[in-house]
Amino acid sequence: MKALALAGPPVARQLRETTGANVRELHGRGITPRLAVVLATDNEATLWYVRSIARAAEKAGVECEVLDLGATAQAGEIAAVLRGLSTDDNTHGIILQTPLPPGVSADGLAAEISVDKDIDGANPLSLGRLTAGLPAFAPATARAVVEVLDHYGFPLAGKSVAVVGRSTVVGKPLLQLLLHRDAAVTVCHSRSQPLGRYTRDADVVVAAAGRAGLLTGSDIRPGAVVVDVGTNVQEDGQLVGDADPASVGEVAAALSPVPGGVGTVTTALLVLHTTEAALARARQPSLAASSPGGAGGHA
Amino acid sequence: MKALALAGPPVARQLRETTGANVRELHGRGITPRLAVVLATDNEATLWYVRSIARAAEKAGVECEVLDLGATAQAGEIAAVLRGLSTDDNTHGIILQTPLPPGVSADGLAAEISVDKDIDGANPLSLGRLTAGLPAFAPATARAVVEVLDHYGFPLAGKSVAVVGRSTVVGKPLLQLLLHRDAAVTVCHSRSQPLGRYTRDADVVVAAAGRAGLLTGSDIRPGAVVVDVGTNVQEDGQLVGDADPASVGEVAAALSPVPGGVGTVTTALLVLHTTEAALARARQPSLAASSPGGAGGHA
Repeated sequence: MKALALAGPPVARQLRETTGANVRELHGRGITPRLAVVLATDNEATLWYVRSIARAAEKAGVECEVLDLGATAQAGEIAAVLRGLSTDDNTHGIILQTPLPPGVSADGLAAEISVDKDIDGANPLSLGRLTAGLPAFAPATARAVVEVLDHYGFPLAGKSVAVVGRSTVVGKPLLQLLLHRDAAVTVCHSRSQPLGRYTRDADVVVAAAGRAGLLTGSDIRPGAVVVDVGTNVQEDGQLVGDADPASVGEVAAALSPVPGGVGTVTTALLVLHTTEAALARARQPSLAASSPGGAGGHA
Repeated sequence: MKALALAGPPVARQLRETTGANVRELHGRGITPRLAVVLATDNEATLWYVRSIARAAEKAGVECEVLDLGATAQAGEIAAVLRGLSTDDNTHGIILQTPLPPGVSADGLAAEISVDKDIDGANPLSLGRLTAGLPAFAPATARAVVEVLDHYGFPLAGKSVAVVGRSTVVGKPLLQLLLHRDAAVTVCHSRSQPLGRYTRDADVVVAAAGRAGLLTGSDIRPGAVVVDVGTNVQEDGQLVGDADPASVGEVAAALSPVPGGVGTVTTALLVLHTTEAALARARQPSLAASSPGGAGGHA
């Protein structure tokens, strides 16, 4: 393993400093930032993840309310809760946690989250605004990739970045963030074979396909920077990324570890986004419309 | 010039057949499809373009109303007109024509166009829905590129496509259409140098940067397919694309001409989209919400 490890905790620490400054400004204005997480599952891993968000929020001085609607909640019930939170003056950030009950689609429901409070960029309108360069929150995982690269000093302008994976929650919004930063971006996926054709020329490779061992050392050029977004649980319970750390680590200049990489940063960003949403609202009360079409978000 | 010319008129003709079938079905249901074009400029080229849309619509049996608000129209006035059309049961398609008066931004105004009627994909919500794989109209120029490739039998699944240009009206929505079709997509732009680094490996190159002569034969691999979206008016009044036809034509297997290529198809698609919007509404009246958040559009 020759590659520099792009550890997440130092990045998260730096983001928490910004969050702390935001919280102090909000407290000075008499505002307690508040995050609401809407939950409708009894999946253990999800519950654990939500508890980790709540802990991170509370540690930062951000209230976190988990609304557990139960694993049999109906779409209409979830929609009503999201609408209520969207118009609640004391709620600044809203997360609709997946998975949802069988037969309930997150797509339609996410449209009920006010764009101003859509701190994990789940509403299709947030995605469209992000794409058009209008203020909107990016999904935290997508932004986390850029924050990791920024923190460790890897420039993006004029560089070539390959994103492996085209999901609506990571690959597609990340691509927009990278284009905004003047990178050339290649999006490839399971149908792009051989994968190395698309990744081997890139200065930066982001693995976000959700398949363990998908990216190996022969897929990247020597000296490339690799950010691993994968979180794959192995049969033995171990969490691994999409990149094969042994072979990629020999070839890459830098590689983000799993665990301990992008995931750590994602949680910190959800809390930071909540404070950004609260500040945007506090600073521009006239723009802080609570409708899903509101424009008070922050890129 | 060895390359096959990917002429637009045969593609447009085929699309007009679909439009004709749609119009017959609509007339059978007692519906006259209707397109509204909102105009706030006295730019001659724009007026000419709008007249060409109106002619194409009327020839197809689609009513076209041009609402000329004048070159000094205010944003509020334009917004009110768009809102009125969005809730008007007899209007099925709406185009907000650019350029707009100085100081008036198309971004905010396009959000007033009901997604169901947003037949040129201008509303950021349409773009977000398109990205998320939800029903929405793509900008006609972006879809025109895919229609040209389909018509001439060039497959996209598993292929490598380079898009030169990252505009919100062409490059970014086109990228989504190409990903939906299982292509790997590279988006490069003015900051991606040398350009050939990004285009030379691609099976298909789409030139959509708006700069005459940007793409030359040395930027593409022998046998590549090139679609030219550029419409650049030269000093002598001549319309030219982004690709240098002489050198690209020697290397490419196929090249769409300018004029006579993608542009012809775009106009046909605006009319087709209007009939699709009318049909979607007629077939699912319960879904044909007139709000900007409505989901009656058609991908």
